[in-house]
Amino acid sequence: MRGLMQDVPLTIDTIFRHAEQHHGDVAIVTDGPAGRTRSTYAEWAQRTRRLGGVFDTLGISADGRIGTFGWNSQRHLELYFAGPCSGRVVHTLNIRLFPEQLTYIANHAEDEVVFVDRTVLPLLWPLIDTMTTIRHVVVMDDGGDNEVPDDPRVLDYETLLADAAPVDFHVTDEGSAAYMCYTSGTTGNPKGVVYSHRSTYLHTMGVISPNAFGLGVRDAAMPVVPMFHANAWGIAHAGPAAGAAMVMPGSMMQPKALADLIVEEGVTFTAGVPTIWQGVLPHLAGRPHKLREIGCGGSAVPKALSEAYREQVGLPILQAWGMTETHPVASSGVLSRAFDDADDATKAAQRARAGIPFLGVEARIVDADTLEEQPWDDKATGELQVRGPWCAAAYYNPDAGVELLTSDGWMKTGDVAAMAPDGNIRIADRTKDLIKSGGEWISSVDLENAIMSHPAVKEAAVVGIPHPKWDERPLACVVLKPGETATEQDILDHLAPLVAKWWMPDAVEFIDEVPKTSVGKFSKKDLRTRFAEYSRD
Amino acid sequence: MRGLMQDVPLTIDTIFRHAEQHHGDVAIVTDGPAGRTRSTYAEWAQRTRRLGGVFDTLGISADGRIGTFGWNSQRHLELYFAGPCSGRVVHTLNIRLFPEQLTYIANHAEDEVVFVDRTVLPLLWPLIDTMTTIRHVVVMDDGGDNEVPDDPRVLDYETLLADAAPVDFHVTDEGSAAYMCYTSGTTGNPKGVVYSHRSTYLHTMGVISPNAFGLGVRDAAMPVVPMFHANAWGIAHAGPAAGAAMVMPGSMMQPKALADLIVEEGVTFTAGVPTIWQGVLPHLAGRPHKLREIGCGGSAVPKALSEAYREQVGLPILQAWGMTETHPVASSGVLSRAFDDADDATKAAQRARAGIPFLGVEARIVDADTLEEQPWDDKATGELQVRGPWCAAAYYNPDAGVELLTSDGWMKTGDVAAMAPDGNIRIADRTKDLIKSGGEWISSVDLENAIMSHPAVKEAAVVGIPHPKWDERPLACVVLKPGETATEQDILDHLAPLVAKWWMPDAVEFIDEVPKTSVGKFSKKDLRTRFAEYSRD
Ligand SMILES: Nc1ncnc2c1ncn2[C@@H]1O[C@H](COP(=O)(O)OP(=O)(O)OP(=O)(O)O)[C@@H](O)[C@H]1O
Ligand SMILES: Nc1ncnc2c1ncn2[C@@H]1O[C@H](COP(=O)(O)OP(=O)(O)OP(=O)(O)O)[C@@H](O)[C@H]1O
Ligand SMILES: [Mg+2]
Ligand SMILES: [Mg+2]
Repeated sequence: MRGLMQDVPLTIDTIFRHAEQHHGDVAIVTDGPAGRTRSTYAEWAQRTRRLGGVFDTLGISADGRIGTFGWNSQRHLELYFAGPCSGRVVHTLNIRLFPEQLTYIANHAEDEVVFVDRTVLPLLWPLIDTMTTIRHVVVMDDGGDNEVPDDPRVLDYETLLADAAPVDFHVTDEGSAAYMCYTSGTTGNPKGVVYSHRSTYLHTMGVISPNAFGLGVRDAAMPVVPMFHANAWGIAHAGPAAGAAMVMPGSMMQPKALADLIVEEGVTFTAGVPTIWQGVLPHLAGRPHKLREIGCGGSAVPKALSEAYREQVGLPILQAWGMTETHPVASSGVLSRAFDDADDATKAAQRARAGIPFLGVEARIVDADTLEEQPWDDKATGELQVRGPWCAAAYYNPDAGVELLTSDGWMKTGDVAAMAPDGNIRIADRTKDLIKSGGEWISSVDLENAIMSHPAVKEAAVVGIPHPKWDERPLACVVLKPGETATEQDILDHLAPLVAKWWMPDAVEFIDEVPKTSVGKFSKKDLRTRFAEYSRD
Repeated sequence: MRGLMQDVPLTIDTIFRHAEQHHGDVAIVTDGPAGRTRSTYAEWAQRTRRLGGVFDTLGISADGRIGTFGWNSQRHLELYFAGPCSGRVVHTLNIRLFPEQLTYIANHAEDEVVFVDRTVLPLLWPLIDTMTTIRHVVVMDDGGDNEVPDDPRVLDYETLLADAAPVDFHVTDEGSAAYMCYTSGTTGNPKGVVYSHRSTYLHTMGVISPNAFGLGVRDAAMPVVPMFHANAWGIAHAGPAAGAAMVMPGSMMQPKALADLIVEEGVTFTAGVPTIWQGVLPHLAGRPHKLREIGCGGSAVPKALSEAYREQVGLPILQAWGMTETHPVASSGVLSRAFDDADDATKAAQRARAGIPFLGVEARIVDADTLEEQPWDDKATGELQVRGPWCAAAYYNPDAGVELLTSDGWMKTGDVAAMAPDGNIRIADRTKDLIKSGGEWISSVDLENAIMSHPAVKEAAVVGIPHPKWDERPLACVVLKPGETATEQDILDHLAPLVAKWWMPDAVEFIDEVPKTSVGKFSKKDLRTRFAEYSRD
C-alpha cells in the first residue's frame, strides 16, 4: 500500500523560501576590518535571488561548479543558497590548504568561477593560472587594502549584483548535487564529497534538533567553524531554516574579536574547533553573555577545556563528532536527564566523549578486515562505520583503490572507537595512526595525551616505526616548551605509571615542531616518512 | 550532477532502532486504574519486536491494516512501531466517534484485526459484527473489570506476546504506507489520510525542532492529545526519536490525574486541546512542576486560557495549528527574539495566533475560486492552502467529488485565514462555516467569540441561513448558563458595539445545547440542517 502524501522534494530552495517568507526581519551581522555590517534575511534573500541572475550573466553551466574562497560572511551565505537553488554546485575551497592542494581540488572539481574575499585574494591570485577551468574571479570586497589585479577575468561582486535580475528558484530533484567539500587532507590528498539537496536538508534538520545544536527563533548563531570547510557544520543552513539570527565573524577571527562578537551581539549558540575555544577563553571569562551552547569538534575536545569554560564562562563545551563525509555532524554529547544528579567529574568525563549518533545516522564498530561487529562495552575497539541519508556513498572521482563503503554498504570512517552500552562513542585513534605491535594495537592518541601531561612538553606525536620482530613499535616525537629541558628518560619515567608496559615507546626523539596539515592537525604521515628508516644510533 | 550520498530511506524502523540502541534506559510510564506501570525503551523495543511476530502468528497480510482502539499507553506505542516497521499499516480508530462512523472507517480501511483496551471494550464490542473485515479482537488489559467476551475472535495481548518470536525490521520503501488516520468528521464523513514512512519521519523531525516542541534527551513528554486521533500530534514518534521519556495517561484522563502526572513524573512537555487545559488549570495552579512547554491546538486557543496559565502555572500555552491532513502539526507560535522586549499584552495577542508554518510546510491564502493569492497584510483573508512532504496529496478512496488538491497542486485546508507580513497565520473560520451576505463574508467564529463574551452566555454557534435578498444571513444559536436569563435584544445590544452593523445576526435562537461532533467540536452542519427552513415567526 502506498502512502498518499505529497511528493514534494527535500531541496534547499525550500529552506531559502522559508527564511525569506517567515524570518525576513531577522538579523545577519557580518564583522570585518571596517566594522560590522547589519542586514536581514529579507535583504539577503533579495540579493541571493539576484546572485542567481549573476550566474546566468557569467554563463555558468546548468550544474557548473562555483568555487568560493572566503570567510564566514553574508556574501558567503548568499553563495551557499544561490548556487544550489539555481541548480549549480557550490565548491568551498579551504583557504588554509597548501597551494598545490588548492590547485588540485579546483581542477578536480572543475570550478568555472571562484568568488574570493578581498582579504584573502593574495592567497588565491598567484595560483589562478594553475586552475585551468576557472574563467572568472569575482572579488567580494570585505575590507582591507589588498590590491585587486587589473585583469579581464577579475570582476566585482557588488557591481555584478547591482546589474543582475532576480531569479526564481525551483529545484525538483532532491538527489541532485548541491555542494562539493573536500576533506582536510590529513591522511593523503583531499577527497571530494558531493552533498545532495536531500542530504543537506536532512542534516540541517538533524543539526537543528535539541540533541544537537537546538536552533530556533530565539537564537543568534555564530559559526566560527569556517564555511570554507565542511559547510560550517551545517550552521549556515540551520540558521535560515530555524530563523535564528546569524553572526558572522568575517576575517575577524582573532580570539578577542570573537569574544566581543559573542558578548555584544547576544550570541546564544556558537561552534568551532578546540584551538579556537582555547584562544577565546581568557577574553570571554567573567564577561556577561547570552550563550546557551558552545559546540566543538573536529578533533578530541580536552576535558580540561570544557571544564575551564564551565568554571569561567558558566557553561561547558558540547562535543560533537563527524567528518566531511558525514556532512559533517554525526554525533553529539548532550547530557540526558540521567545525568541530572551526577557529580561534576562524572559529567565532565561524559562530555569528553564523542556522544550518541543522531537520529539519521546509524553507527557500528567492526574488525576492519572481517567486518565482525564488536560489542558495545566501552572496552572493545574497532573501526567506526556509519550509515544514513547524510553519509557519503562514494568520493568524487577518487584515486585508484580508495573505497569508501564496505562490502555490506557501511561507510568506513577511518576512525577507531569504542562504544558504551548506549552507543556513546569514544574515539580512540585513526586507523592509519594506530600502531600494530606483536599483533596488538597501541593508540597513538592515548600515548600523546599521556606524554603531553608532562610539564615540560609542548606537543607530542607518536607514530609507529617498522620493527623486525614486533612489526611496528611506537616512537615518541616530542617538542619541549621554550626554555624547558627534559631527557628521554624523564619522559619515559613520566609515562611508565600511566600506560601498559608494552605500550612504552622504544625511543623519544626531540624535534622542533610537529609537522601540521594545512588546517592545523598533526601530520603523522610526514613524521612517518621522516622516521621511516629510523634506527637508534 | 548527482549527489554522492547514501541512498538510505526515511523509514520508521530507523526511529525504532535509534530508541532501542541509544535510549534503552529511558523511561516509559503508563497510568491506569491500577496505578502506574514503569518500563523503558529497551523493554518496549523487545516487546515491539515480538509484537511483529504476533502479526505473523495472526496471519496479517504483508501490508494489512491493523486497527487500534485505545488510550495513550506503552502498548499503543508498541503497535505504533511494530505495525509500520513490519510493513503493516496502523489504523487508529477514534474511540469517540459515533458507532456508525466507527463501522464506516473500519470497513473503509479494511482492518484485519483490532487491538482494543479493556477499559473501552464496551464501546467497540457491540459493533464488531458490523466490521466485516476484522478477524481478530486482541484485548489489552489496561485495568478495570469490563467483561471480556468468550468468543473465538477474542485474544489476549500479553498471551500472544509471550508466545511470539521477535522479528527483524527492515522497511526499504519510504513511500509505502505507515498509518491511516481519519479526520474528525466535523463537516461530513471522516476522510481517510494515509501517512507514509517518509512523511512520518519528516513530521517527526519537524515536531522535535525548537520552533515546534523542541524535544530531546532532557525531556519527559506527555501526550494528552490522543494516539487514537491524528497520531498524538507526532509526539509518539518524537519521544523515541528524541530519547525523551514518555509519560502516558492511559485511561486516566481526569484533569486531576493529568495534573498529578505532570507534577509527579517531572513532565517537561505536554500537549492537548484547549478544553483539556481548561480542566487541568485549577489542579495545576500553584504546584511545583518542571514544565517548559504546553502545546495546544485542534481549535482556537483562547487568549484568556494562555494568560491564565502564564499567571497561575508560570508559563503560557504554545498554540499550534494543523489538521489530520497535515500529519497533523503544520505551524506553531514560538515567540522569537523580536518579542523579547514586548509587553505582556502584545505577547498574549501574538500567542493567540496559529503561528508560522514549519520548515517543510509552505502556506498561502487564496481566493478559493480563482486561486488568486491574497496579500499577507493580516487583513485580507482567503482559503489557507499548504504544500509539503508531510501534507496529504489525496484521501483514501474518497467520496465522489471530494478533491483535496487544487489544480496547481496545493492542499485545500478548508480553513479561512489571514496572514501577517511574516506569514504568521490567523485562522478566521472554516470555509463551510463562513456566512456569505450580499457578496461579502462574515466570520461565524468572530461573531461567536463576541456573543460568548456576554456574561449570561455559555455557548454560542452562528450559522448562515438562506435569505432571498442577501443570499445568507447570520443566525445566532445561544445556550444560556444555568440560572441566567437574557433576551434576544440583550444579546444584540451586547453585540452592537463589537461588530460591524451588517454582521449583526438577523435573529437569536435560544437552544438547550450546541450539537457537538464525536470529538466535541461544534457541529454546525447539524445546526444548518435544523434551521434550514428558518423563518422568524
Ligand atoms: N570529536 C572528535 N574527537 C576526535 N576526533 C575527531 C572529532 N571530530 C572529528 N574528528 C576527527 O576529524 C576527522 C574528520 O576530519 P576531516 O573530514 O576534516 O578531514 P581529515 O580526516 O582530517 O582529512 P583526510 O580525510 O583528508 O585525511 C575524523 O575522521 C576524526 O578523525
Ligand atoms: N490552532 C487552531 N486554531 C483554530 N482552528 C484549528 C486550530 N488547529 C486546528 N484547527 C481546526 O481543526 C481542523 C482539523 O481538525 P481535524 O483534522 O481533526 O478534523 P476536522 O476538520 O474537524 O473534521 P473533518 O475534516 O472531517 O470535517 C482544522 O482544519 C481547523 O479548522
Ligand atoms: Mg578523513
Ligand atoms: Mg477537516
